[in-house]
Amino acid sequence: MDGRRRGAAILVIGDEILSGRTQDTNTGYIARWLAQLGVPVGEARVVPDIEAEIVAAVRHLSARFDYVFSTGGIGPTHDDITADCMAKAFGTGIDFHPAVFAAMAARYASLNIGPFNEARQRMARIPYGASLIVNGLSGAPGFQLGNVFVMAGIPAVMQAMLEDVRGRLVAGQALSSVTVSAHLGEGTIAAGLAALQKQYPDIPLGSYPFNKDGKFGTSLVARGSDAARLAEVKAALTAMIRTAGGEPVD
Amino acid sequence: MDGRRRGAAILVIGDEILSGRTQDTNTGYIARWLAQLGVPVGEARVVPDIEAEIVAAVRHLSARFDYVFSTGGIGPTHDDITADCMAKAFGTGIDFHPAVFAAMAARYASLNIGPFNEARQRMARIPYGASLIVNGLSGAPGFQLGNVFVMAGIPAVMQAMLEDVRGRLVAGQALSSVTVSAHLGEGTIAAGLAALQKQYPDIPLGSYPFNKDGKFGTSLVARGSDAARLAEVKAALTAMIRTAGGEPVD
Repeated sequence: MDGRRRGAAILVIGDEILSGRTQDTNTGYIARWLAQLGVPVGEARVVPDIEAEIVAAVRHLSARFDYVFSTGGIGPTHDDITADCMAKAFGTGIDFHPAVFAAMAARYASLNIGPFNEARQRMARIPYGASLIVNGLSGAPGFQLGNVFVMAGIPAVMQAMLEDVRGRLVAGQALSSVTVSAHLGEGTIAAGLAALQKQYPDIPLGSYPFNKDGKFGTSLVARGSDAARLAEVKAALTAMIRTAGGEPVD
Repeated sequence: MDGRRRGAAILVIGDEILSGRTQDTNTGYIARWLAQLGVPVGEARVVPDIEAEIVAAVRHLSARFDYVFSTGGIGPTHDDITADCMAKAFGTGIDFHPAVFAAMAARYASLNIGPFNEARQRMARIPYGASLIVNGLSGAPGFQLGNVFVMAGIPAVMQAMLEDVRGRLVAGQALSSVTVSAHLGEGTIAAGLAALQKQYPDIPLGSYPFNKDGKFGTSLVARGSDAARLAEVKAALTAMIRTAGGEPVD
C-alpha cells in the first residue's frame, strides 16, 4: 500500500475519454475549483466502463486521498455502471431511492422530456448510506459515498453538482499563483530557477514553455497560499529573469 | 496485483495538469493515434512531479499493459525529473548519452538558441539500456525503456516523437467506429440500445448525449475492427432509432 496523501484525486470514468472521442475538461475544471478552496489534486485517473477497473480505482484512491471526485457513468444506458461499482467498492448495496424516484417521476410527468421509463428509473438507484448531490440542471442526482463524490460526466451538469459539494469539504488555505513570463528559453533560466527553488523550498516553482503568436518564451509559476510570500517570490523571479538578460512580458 | 491487460496506458506527468493550469490534450491525441494502429488504451493517469508517485505509476502500468506512453518532465528545469524516475522504476542507472550530448552540442552551436549550458545538458541524460526516440522538432530526444515510451509534454514535440515510435509497436487490427445520432434523449433509446448490445456482444456500444446549437440529442457509437460488422450494427442502430420515434441526423 502506498502512503496516504492529503488532498483530492479525480476519477474520470468512460471509454469515450480513453478512445479519444471526447476531450476531458472536467479534470481541469475540478482542479481549479478545488484550488480556490485550498484542496490540492494529487492524482487523476481515467478508467474504462469496466466494473473491476472502476472498483479497484475507487478503493485505491479513496484510501489514499481525503476526497475523490468521480465523473461519468451515472446516466440511463447500459454502459452507465458507476453507481453499482461505487456500492461494490464500499461493500454496500444499492436500490431505488424512494425520494429520488418520486422527484424524478414528477419531473418527467410535468416536463415534456419523455416517459419515466425503466432506463431513466435506473438513475434513481443510489447506494445505501449515500447522501445525495443535487443536480439543479437535469434532475437525476449524484451522490456522496464515504469520501467519494459521484458526479455526472456532462460538464454543465458536473459543474452544477460541484456547487452542492462545496459545503461538505474542509477547506484549506486557498492556493493562488503568480506568473512571470519572458521571451527566454527554459534552458536559459533553469539554473536561476533551481537556485530560487532552493531559496524558497515551500513554494513550488514551475516552468512552462510557450509559443504565443510565433514568439517563444517561458512562463514561471509560483504557487502558495501566502500572498506576501508569493509577492516576494514574484519579485525574485523578475530579478532572476533580468539577470538572465530578459524582461518580463504579459 | 491486478490482472494483466492488453493494450496501452498513458501516463501524463506534471503538476501543471493537476493544478488545472494546463489542459491536457496529449491523452486524446495518443488515444486516437493508437486506435488507428489497433492498440486500445486501457487507462490514463496524471501524476505530479514527485519521484515516488512517478516511479510507482510507471512500475504498475508497465507491468499491466503492453505499452506505456508517458508525456512530460524531460525538459531542462529542476522539476523535470522523468528520466531519473524512469531509470529508478526499471532499476537501472542514468548518465549523459555521448551521441545525444554531441548532437545537442552541435545543434546549440549552429543555431542561435542560447548556450548549451548545464541545464540544457541535463536533457542529454538517458537511462542505461534505453533506445532513443527522435525529436525532429527541438532536438532533445525521448527514449524507450522496456515497454515505456518517454516523450515530451509539449504537444507538437510529443506528436513528432510518436512518429518515431510507430514502427516499434505490434499493430493490432485498426479500430474504427460508426456513429448514429438522433434528437432523442438517452433514456428514450437506452432499452433498445441495451438489447442491441446483447445482440452484438463483441462490439462495444456507447451512448453520448450532445447539445448542438441548443438541440439536444444522443450519439450512439459502435467500435470495432470489422467493417462489415460495423455496417451491420450501424443499420441496426438506425432501425432502433426509428422504432423509438427518431430519425438519424448528422
